[in-house]
Amino acid sequence: MSELRCNLISREWVIIATERAKRPHDFVKAKPKGEALPEYKSDCPFCPGNEKLTPSESFVLKGDNSWKVRVVTNKFGALSQGTPLSRKVEGLYSSMSGFGIAEVIIEHPKHNTCMALMDIKAVEDIIRVYKIRYTEIEKIKGVQSIIIFKNHGPSAGTSLEHPHSQLIATPIVPPQSRNRIQQAVNFFDLTGQCLFCRTLQDEIKAKERIIVETENFVSFMPYAALSPFHIWIFPKRHSPSFTDINEAEIVDFAKILKETISRLYYGLDNPDYNYSIRSMPVAEKGTEYCHWYLSIIPRVSQPAGFELGSGMFINTALPEESAKFLREIKPI
Amino acid sequence: MSELRCNLISREWVIIATERAKRPHDFVKAKPKGEALPEYKSDCPFCPGNEKLTPSESFVLKGDNSWKVRVVTNKFGALSQGTPLSRKVEGLYSSMSGFGIAEVIIEHPKHNTCMALMDIKAVEDIIRVYKIRYTEIEKIKGVQSIIIFKNHGPSAGTSLEHPHSQLIATPIVPPQSRNRIQQAVNFFDLTGQCLFCRTLQDEIKAKERIIVETENFVSFMPYAALSPFHIWIFPKRHSPSFTDINEAEIVDFAKILKETISRLYYGLDNPDYNYSIRSMPVAEKGTEYCHWYLSIIPRVSQPAGFELGSGMFINTALPEESAKFLREIKPI
Repeated sequence: MSELRCNLISREWVIIATERAKRPHDFVKAKPKGEALPEYKSDCPFCPGNEKLTPSESFVLKGDNSWKVRVVTNKFGALSQGTPLSRKVEGLYSSMSGFGIAEVIIEHPKHNTCMALMDIKAVEDIIRVYKIRYTEIEKIKGVQSIIIFKNHGPSAGTSLEHPHSQLIATPIVPPQSRNRIQQAVNFFDLTGQCLFCRTLQDEIKAKERIIVETENFVSFMPYAALSPFHIWIFPKRHSPSFTDINEAEIVDFAKILKETISRLYYGLDNPDYNYSIRSMPVAEKGTEYCHWYLSIIPRVSQPAGFELGSGMFINTALPEESAKFLREIKPI
Repeated sequence: MSELRCNLISREWVIIATERAKRPHDFVKAKPKGEALPEYKSDCPFCPGNEKLTPSESFVLKGDNSWKVRVVTNKFGALSQGTPLSRKVEGLYSSMSGFGIAEVIIEHPKHNTCMALMDIKAVEDIIRVYKIRYTEIEKIKGVQSIIIFKNHGPSAGTSLEHPHSQLIATPIVPPQSRNRIQQAVNFFDLTGQCLFCRTLQDEIKAKERIIVETENFVSFMPYAALSPFHIWIFPKRHSPSFTDINEAEIVDFAKILKETISRLYYGLDNPDYNYSIRSMPVAEKGTEYCHWYLSIIPRVSQPAGFELGSGMFINTALPEESAKFLREIKPI
């Protein structure tokens, strides 16, 4: 019997279609094996030695011989800091100039690694750089919202093999964020609690959707997961903005992120995935009612006409079963 | 220079990334040619003669020798009419039993046709059947919202070649619909106008995003199109529910739908696409503030981490340019 589930954070109803539910192993996709990737490629703009192929460098974390993490302006960025911020309203139509920031975070010198395979110290460095760039960019006048995200693999929207994340800062708060904040405010006004803190308390108590728990973080499947293996990582401490993360938490966050991604890597044979850090808009950093989190969406299913036409999702995997499957994977 | 655009109907901001804008021809995807499909396949559950392979038939439009359109319960339906409707709230989590309707509308007896290639009479029959099923199903107690949609091609989420659409009736109004209705109500309260009627007036005046105009309908690209070749077809007459469509309008709607799809077929070499009919929830059929429309999303680009993480879209095609391209296509 299938079931509809709603959760208060995303305000989305999801049809958990257990009638046609697939077992966790069914989501392992056969991949063209191809040849193993080389450690260095002469035509890769992100490989060390090819730095001249990228636009201006905005930050570099230096290592002994090479850089460890490198941040550059996105050559094909959808928004640009050089564009003066302006707005126009004509009849029904509002528009803005394409002011904003688009950066690429080159995660590692090696062409052929990924988060599941990297040394944990390298993952910590990536998170440190996320925080540095986030903190720096939110000071720029006109920036309202910053999103850090990762496209891993072709079906997640990237054709570049070299491990990288992206940052986009927009001159508006996305309406989806506004809606979620409003829900959280309503919940706070009613209960005096942060909806995210409360969700986490309930999930820790229920146990069945937890994947990994560390000192400061929990990774788990949302009760109303949008799609198979949809995962959230929440900080335990109430912190609205990603910039609130402290050094001890960075080390711990790297640990839970690598471990969660590794379970996907070994359990589902390196699926394509996206992740994004959802953090409060710049102007609402200190709020009591929301907190930041990371959301992972493995690309193991395809939204179709129903999803596009209704905004509702059909998920053919039971979150409790997927969570159990990932709990039992032993990352090597 | 890129631009951000908002439109009031979807309340979505879209980044129109003209810096990296692609020309319309760039969206033609090379397809594996394969062999031409046969007119009949012995193992296709939707081909005439194989009717026993489908679950119960809920409607059939008869022709002289075979049926013309056939509606059956979806064998892998996410929701089922047999499930009693029940709700549960536990702490933060609301759920419902999987009550609902999931049907497949088999559009044509021929395995190897599609809307661009069908006789116009066959398209009219499909629209007639859409209306018949819509009207019938909204009488069922517990049904709140009905969506008719089509997945055309593998990247649009279907593996079945035989031309078909689907209908899903849900026991809730999708939150996305609620949000849009609320926007339309706000606009109505402020101006006394239907936001959709007003949008259409403005688009007809502006001309630059129009693709096809018929006596009763207009197909055009939204000002803030979410993705390349995103298309809306609006009825000119204010009508909140798809069931308002009359016989003359059915004939005219078939004409504009076939012609719009044909322009995609010939202009972009038969792209995969989804379409869906967005109609008012059952309980709000008579409203003055909203009206039904059809939305087409060709699958020529891939939403990635930014879209998933922010709810905003990056569109690499300029709607005005894509509309001009389709206007100039001559459907054979």
